[in-house]
Amino acid sequence: MTGVKKPNEKHLMLFSGRAYPALADEVAQLMHVGIVPTRSLNYANSEIYVRFEESVRGCDAYVIQSHAAPVNEWVMEQLIMVDALKRASAKRITVVAPFYPYARQDKKHAGREPISARLIADLYKTAGADRLMSVDLHAAQIQGFFDGPVDHLWALPVLSDYVESKYDTSEMTVVSPDAGRVRLADMWTDKLNCALAIIHKRRDPNVANTVAVHEVVGEVEGRVCLLVDDMIDTAGTICQAAEALMERGAKSVIAAATHPVLSGPAVDRLTASAFEEVIVTNTLPIPDERHFDRLTVLSIAPLIARAITEVFEDGSVTSLFNGQS
Amino acid sequence: MTGVKKPNEKHLMLFSGRAYPALADEVAQLMHVGIVPTRSLNYANSEIYVRFEESVRGCDAYVIQSHAAPVNEWVMEQLIMVDALKRASAKRITVVAPFYPYARQDKKHAGREPISARLIADLYKTAGADRLMSVDLHAAQIQGFFDGPVDHLWALPVLSDYVESKYDTSEMTVVSPDAGRVRLADMWTDKLNCALAIIHKRRDPNVANTVAVHEVVGEVEGRVCLLVDDMIDTAGTICQAAEALMERGAKSVIAAATHPVLSGPAVDRLTASAFEEVIVTNTLPIPDERHFDRLTVLSIAPLIARAITEVFEDGSVTSLFNGQS
Amino acid sequence: MTGVKKPNEKHLMLFSGRAYPALADEVAQLMHVGIVPTRSLNYANSEIYVRFEESVRGCDAYVIQSHAAPVNEWVMEQLIMVDALKRASAKRITVVAPFYPYARQDKKHAGREPISARLIADLYKTAGADRLMSVDLHAAQIQGFFDGPVDHLWALPVLSDYVESKYDTSEMTVVSPDAGRVRLADMWTDKLNCALAIIHKRRDPNVANTVAVHEVVGEVEGRVCLLVDDMIDTAGTICQAAEALMERGAKSVIAAATHPVLSGPAVDRLTASAFEEVIVTNTLPIPDERHFDRLTVLSIAPLIARAITEVFEDGSVTSLFNGQS
Amino acid sequence: MTGVKKPNEKHLMLFSGRAYPALADEVAQLMHVGIVPTRSLNYANSEIYVRFEESVRGCDAYVIQSHAAPVNEWVMEQLIMVDALKRASAKRITVVAPFYPYARQDKKHAGREPISARLIADLYKTAGADRLMSVDLHAAQIQGFFDGPVDHLWALPVLSDYVESKYDTSEMTVVSPDAGRVRLADMWTDKLNCALAIIHKRRDPNVANTVAVHEVVGEVEGRVCLLVDDMIDTAGTICQAAEALMERGAKSVIAAATHPVLSGPAVDRLTASAFEEVIVTNTLPIPDERHFDRLTVLSIAPLIARAITEVFEDGSVTSLFNGQS
Amino acid sequence: MTGVKKPNEKHLMLFSGRAYPALADEVAQLMHVGIVPTRSLNYANSEIYVRFEESVRGCDAYVIQSHAAPVNEWVMEQLIMVDALKRASAKRITVVAPFYPYARQDKKHAGREPISARLIADLYKTAGADRLMSVDLHAAQIQGFFDGPVDHLWALPVLSDYVESKYDTSEMTVVSPDAGRVRLADMWTDKLNCALAIIHKRRDPNVANTVAVHEVVGEVEGRVCLLVDDMIDTAGTICQAAEALMERGAKSVIAAATHPVLSGPAVDRLTASAFEEVIVTNTLPIPDERHFDRLTVLSIAPLIARAITEVFEDGSVTSLFNGQS
Amino acid sequence: MTGVKKPNEKHLMLFSGRAYPALADEVAQLMHVGIVPTRSLNYANSEIYVRFEESVRGCDAYVIQSHAAPVNEWVMEQLIMVDALKRASAKRITVVAPFYPYARQDKKHAGREPISARLIADLYKTAGADRLMSVDLHAAQIQGFFDGPVDHLWALPVLSDYVESKYDTSEMTVVSPDAGRVRLADMWTDKLNCALAIIHKRRDPNVANTVAVHEVVGEVEGRVCLLVDDMIDTAGTICQAAEALMERGAKSVIAAATHPVLSGPAVDRLTASAFEEVIVTNTLPIPDERHFDRLTVLSIAPLIARAITEVFEDGSVTSLFNGQS
Repeated sequence: MTGVKKPNEKHLMLFSGRAYPALADEVAQLMHVGIVPTRSLNYANSEIYVRFEESVRGCDAYVIQSHAAPVNEWVMEQLIMVDALKRASAKRITVVAPFYPYARQDKKHAGREPISARLIADLYKTAGADRLMSVDLHAAQIQGFFDGPVDHLWALPVLSDYVESKYDTSEMTVVSPDAGRVRLADMWTDKLNCALAIIHKRRDPNVANTVAVHEVVGEVEGRVCLLVDDMIDTAGTICQAAEALMERGAKSVIAAATHPVLSGPAVDRLTASAFEEVIVTNTLPIPDERHFDRLTVLSIAPLIARAITEVFEDGSVTSLFNGQS
Repeated sequence: MTGVKKPNEKHLMLFSGRAYPALADEVAQLMHVGIVPTRSLNYANSEIYVRFEESVRGCDAYVIQSHAAPVNEWVMEQLIMVDALKRASAKRITVVAPFYPYARQDKKHAGREPISARLIADLYKTAGADRLMSVDLHAAQIQGFFDGPVDHLWALPVLSDYVESKYDTSEMTVVSPDAGRVRLADMWTDKLNCALAIIHKRRDPNVANTVAVHEVVGEVEGRVCLLVDDMIDTAGTICQAAEALMERGAKSVIAAATHPVLSGPAVDRLTASAFEEVIVTNTLPIPDERHFDRLTVLSIAPLIARAITEVFEDGSVTSLFNGQS
Repeated sequence: MTGVKKPNEKHLMLFSGRAYPALADEVAQLMHVGIVPTRSLNYANSEIYVRFEESVRGCDAYVIQSHAAPVNEWVMEQLIMVDALKRASAKRITVVAPFYPYARQDKKHAGREPISARLIADLYKTAGADRLMSVDLHAAQIQGFFDGPVDHLWALPVLSDYVESKYDTSEMTVVSPDAGRVRLADMWTDKLNCALAIIHKRRDPNVANTVAVHEVVGEVEGRVCLLVDDMIDTAGTICQAAEALMERGAKSVIAAATHPVLSGPAVDRLTASAFEEVIVTNTLPIPDERHFDRLTVLSIAPLIARAITEVFEDGSVTSLFNGQS
Repeated sequence: MTGVKKPNEKHLMLFSGRAYPALADEVAQLMHVGIVPTRSLNYANSEIYVRFEESVRGCDAYVIQSHAAPVNEWVMEQLIMVDALKRASAKRITVVAPFYPYARQDKKHAGREPISARLIADLYKTAGADRLMSVDLHAAQIQGFFDGPVDHLWALPVLSDYVESKYDTSEMTVVSPDAGRVRLADMWTDKLNCALAIIHKRRDPNVANTVAVHEVVGEVEGRVCLLVDDMIDTAGTICQAAEALMERGAKSVIAAATHPVLSGPAVDRLTASAFEEVIVTNTLPIPDERHFDRLTVLSIAPLIARAITEVFEDGSVTSLFNGQS
Repeated sequence: MTGVKKPNEKHLMLFSGRAYPALADEVAQLMHVGIVPTRSLNYANSEIYVRFEESVRGCDAYVIQSHAAPVNEWVMEQLIMVDALKRASAKRITVVAPFYPYARQDKKHAGREPISARLIADLYKTAGADRLMSVDLHAAQIQGFFDGPVDHLWALPVLSDYVESKYDTSEMTVVSPDAGRVRLADMWTDKLNCALAIIHKRRDPNVANTVAVHEVVGEVEGRVCLLVDDMIDTAGTICQAAEALMERGAKSVIAAATHPVLSGPAVDRLTASAFEEVIVTNTLPIPDERHFDRLTVLSIAPLIARAITEVFEDGSVTSLFNGQS
Repeated sequence: MTGVKKPNEKHLMLFSGRAYPALADEVAQLMHVGIVPTRSLNYANSEIYVRFEESVRGCDAYVIQSHAAPVNEWVMEQLIMVDALKRASAKRITVVAPFYPYARQDKKHAGREPISARLIADLYKTAGADRLMSVDLHAAQIQGFFDGPVDHLWALPVLSDYVESKYDTSEMTVVSPDAGRVRLADMWTDKLNCALAIIHKRRDPNVANTVAVHEVVGEVEGRVCLLVDDMIDTAGTICQAAEALMERGAKSVIAAATHPVLSGPAVDRLTASAFEEVIVTNTLPIPDERHFDRLTVLSIAPLIARAITEVFEDGSVTSLFNGQS
């Protein structure tokens, strides 16, 4: 036999974009590893520059980025990091995007629209990503947008454990804020074993096109209503839903959602709303000025840390969710 | 200038698999063209052979196949037809699959499952398809599984025109048979301007795992209940839903669905059910022995014919649906 | 150095489609491993569902399927298994197809035909296969259809060892049943060191197009004629050849072929024929009702088991065939 | 012949991103066509939404975007526009990027860096671009980063015609501001037939690493010095060069560059500098507050308009530059 | 409607490599077009440079090259021409390779060999070829190596028309020079309606490995023997075959083959052989010093010219061969 | 857990083309491994045949080839070797091309030219190369032509160590022989801390087009002038430069370049020139008849050996160059 043989090792390395380093740090601490020192900056003309300050040759790389605003900035930074890893001979590259960017543009709602969620998957692939990891995709079908393995993590256990520990679920009704989230609400009712209601937006036949009636379908009177969604963005829908529920005699309303986008008027609306508590995770950073009293933030880092460990060690991510996901 | 110039023409040609030639014929007649004569057969060992009996060089090909059982047979036949067209120098190839195969396996419901709907899109691409056309995808996200243009047609106008022409919608409630179809039901309520209800399958807390209570969320007493779905496969869910609605005092129940899969016990169940009428389109063939009295079949051929014409003539498919799709 | 290092292991796992589990079991037993428990079924509408009941993350997967009728069913099942493995993070996926599907459509015999054998190679690649393993490809060029390594196994030693052990090769002539198999017959003459003859189908000049004379080229009188082919499908050609040989004074005729397709009239024809013995391997399952007295079936499992072991252990498959293949 | 034939037309359509609509408008007016009405906006969480308000089926699309800051925003917008065009069945898509984004990251200057200019080319390809058009690429090799045709336009004639019309070139020396731009300066000397000098940044051997001496190589005393570059970004290099030239006795200094990036301190530096005139084109927008007295802006729109016309009409872009480019 | 519409034209252009310009010229004259003026040269270090001297934007390009020795030179030249055409915006590029390079390395004859014929197909694809055209591929399966349309032309009618016009086929026997060419000989017997024989190379059992007996299988005594092959390379096999036939009492021998490779000792062997006539086409150039008395060269140019015309005009190449090919 | 686990090893193997086996041997000896025995030859018709005489399954392959004339021959040989390795199941394939072929055709210098350097990168990728290693690319941007990791080695330290050891750099001026190599000269001045000059080719305004004046920009009188370039091909430019420097009073001239192409008249020119010494490396073979007295050849093998070792052992190639490259 000609040549030389050596035993093969695998080498996990964690990388973080600049969008939310605290989350990556928390994951790293839970895993007892460091984040690879990286020089990242924007040049004067706003172009991004990235360089890793250690050799990454042959490593199993996990590139963590949170896609808060400005989302295009953070997508491009992550793509550039992946390109640099590929060209520096990383062996395998996993994009960790707890909040998948452009997830809501997952289909053409009208003609001549993009399907940006598919585009994002293709951009990651093109840059050199071998795998994706994400939490609570807006539509589970987004898994199929990527041509490779996707580890799809669920925050539901994190959120529902908290709800069950604090509230009496026997007087609770899970409410979907619109027709598109009923399947998620359905999973919550399974988990908490409670009733379901939905808010149905219906056009007022007397007024053209714009005005909607928020019809409550299901029994909510005297119930603690738990409004569930995958994300809270501008909080318009969920706050109108809360109002409709209170009008229909709900005892109280609380909200639980994985992704705290909290854009534009979200904080003002939630502060002014009837919500007793708004429960989210930290898949996205929440700047101090956007925190408010009734907001509870649960950490997603333990879940991500466990999932990365399973992936690195050829264990089972599915086992974290009892065979599902 | 060296060389020779000629004016360029485009040449539409229609092709049909063997699954449901009557539908392709109906489309062809509406378009005043013929189906290209094709030799298709299975060899003794079940392998498929296809040959086109005319030159197809330079043509704009539309390959129509219906994905009834045995669905793998018809998928392979269509792939083989596309391969033969590609190698015979067709200029552009559009797969027309009114009922998209494997559409329900559009995500991993549990770990270590395939995403067969994405696989199917990739197989078509690999064989040589440039474009897809389909009717009422189980999830609209499937558009994003294909790396190219997808013309997504909606049968809702076909079905709802019929319902409006025959029933008094003022006493009608649209019902979603489970949590996953509420968005579709929502579109029907917009179209018919009527109320919404949903059937919520809930596990019986006293019995482990298998038994479910069919809870009706919303008002249905005294109402004509229109159960809507994208397909009727074994008809189990929809027949249980009808029963639950009748128990809750519905005046009557009718069903409307695009795709008449009608597998296994479907016809027996529907015949034994309370449905006053079951309305479907002919995206799939319904063998004579599976027809029954209360079944109404509306033709999807005019919609497909119009869509192909728009595609060929660089018109607008979106315009067929008022800017949506 | 940032990060964590672990030693790397490789992990062989065997998977079996539903076409011929007995062959996969035999391979597994010879290798002293188990087949990975897999849930495979057809839904009522004939779509296939597959799920692996163990984690496959990081494994070196071998997916064994036999492509008997209904061949399209088994191709699709194998593609779906490969897709599920890819998405479940298998590290390397080898398709084991002892009888390569659609191998005879390896070129355009006439204009506007597909090249289905190339299409099949591309479908496997698209689904996620990294490598192929097959036995006695109809044309060796099919190796070049796949964009990756192909392990091409030869059953000739298995068959010829048997023939040599049972027959006196000094009175034997190897006969090619038509012009397309002469190279195979040539390899047999090298192996057995005996004479060659061929059957030449020649059009009768007096009758248009359809009738053929089976001309025997070479000396066969008083010889034991061994008709060789890569497969026996409907057995028409080989039985006509046997008849022609007997008419020309052959002492006896026997047949040896790798793949027992045995479609349609094959068993009736062979039973009615002059063959003293028909020798095949079990690359394809032979249902009990298709067995007959003079049929000898040699197992291909030891060859496949040895080849998989060589591939997994970075040994040499070529060495199994003295540097060829 | 089965099917229908129609004459084929080609249909040019112009699209504009939001970075610099005035440039696209100028191009469109010169071509006597309109920009396709497009709905573009950022959602509250900063994700971009795009929809074309007319059918684009079958068109030959030119998507014009200027990559000023925030450059990642405008890259993503253009990618999303291309994705929407691809999915809406545009026939051919040309990305028009007068200032190619990330052009300076065209190689690894150090280990573990990205090659962002190649990444950008691949992102455009992945989104669906068939062709690129750009002006004065930072390195001409970037043409080779894209897997398809690139029309590389040169602003040199635009700039040099102006210089020749206003200055006496017999007393002019062309100066390269550093070692990397000498080839460009060389092309200017050919065009203007005048002498060459270069500024050579040399480390001061007495001081470690950071301090550089700006050595002037060549004769500049009493000469009108024309400093040339492809872009002016923060203007540091070029202003230091101007100072060094004045110290060496230059009669006056002027600057000519294609791309007015003008980031950060650029305007302050140029205003404070000895430059008699700074000549640029409008490949990038210059906000009013960044205009200054001695800045001359020449329009690049006529060149782009002519190039698009040549591409659409299968003419020759090369002919616009006498066979070069 | 925004934008501008123009009628679409298609524009055929012929290009020629430097291997055999006379063949391209003959094709061009038959088509009444010129070859596009092209600057092709080798630099001093042997690298090739190519530039087209006319705009090729939007053209339908046919790049004709003959793959005589030095074959790697001519392959690279053709790849570089295709690259230049792609980057210069040719609309469609067809590689015309009358003698497909590396056709004999169409499979692995032994382990650890390349499949160079597949590699060549992939290289053409990578450079930018959309289609291939070739004459008498060594194995028809090579069609399947290219991922796109292949026009496979047959020289058999050209050769057989000549044979029938000159010889009395009633006293003729078609002979295959070895086991690998019997299918070709079979096609000749169909065409000429005459008998078949084959030369069977058999190892001498008394001498190890190298010495072979040339056994004649079939009747040749008193017959005019027509040895057929796809190519004559070093002429060793065919000359030994001729000798064996004469020894067995053949009346005379002639040879017919498509490709006159005529390498190394070929001309000496053929000159010294018993052949009455050697008939070939001009798919490859034959230098004057390699012509000899009994060599007849038939032109392949009319066939190529007709095929290119059919491809350009969306006619049928298959029709040139009665539906086959 | 089903299946079998084994520890994973990595296995380095070195392969050499036939262009310059002495270089590969030197690398192999420095690494204490052998070159894998390989059968390589040209058939009579000039096609190349390659076979490895040992199993290469699972290996980490480094394929060393020097691209001297005939360059197309050696490119094809290397592509064929890579194809054979891919099909024989090598795990990872690195192309080692010390002198990158066609590096000077790295952009379109004029319209309708190829970008052959990009084509070469794509051909390697297509054949199966995972990585590239090269020395002193003509333009560093060529790194970005390959879609994967490129290890770009620098010969500058090898050359400059020699220069510093032999010459007094305080009286030295580094000279760029034309405008395109100034950046390289600039790196030399940094390394040797000395002054810079350039040769500027300027058209004579009195004579049309062809005649150029070689203007020396910078001070050279009484200086030891070191002309630097990446390669010496025909030596025309560098010899004219030397002459111009001597005319301007240079004390002496020496040349340093990485790649000794030495084509055509190179040796005659250099022998007739004023050069005191010409220093090169052995990235290309120099036949004995092309050696001359004043030529000094430094070995590049130690650098390549160290780089291959770093790549195989997941070390850092960048560290060989202090963080650059």
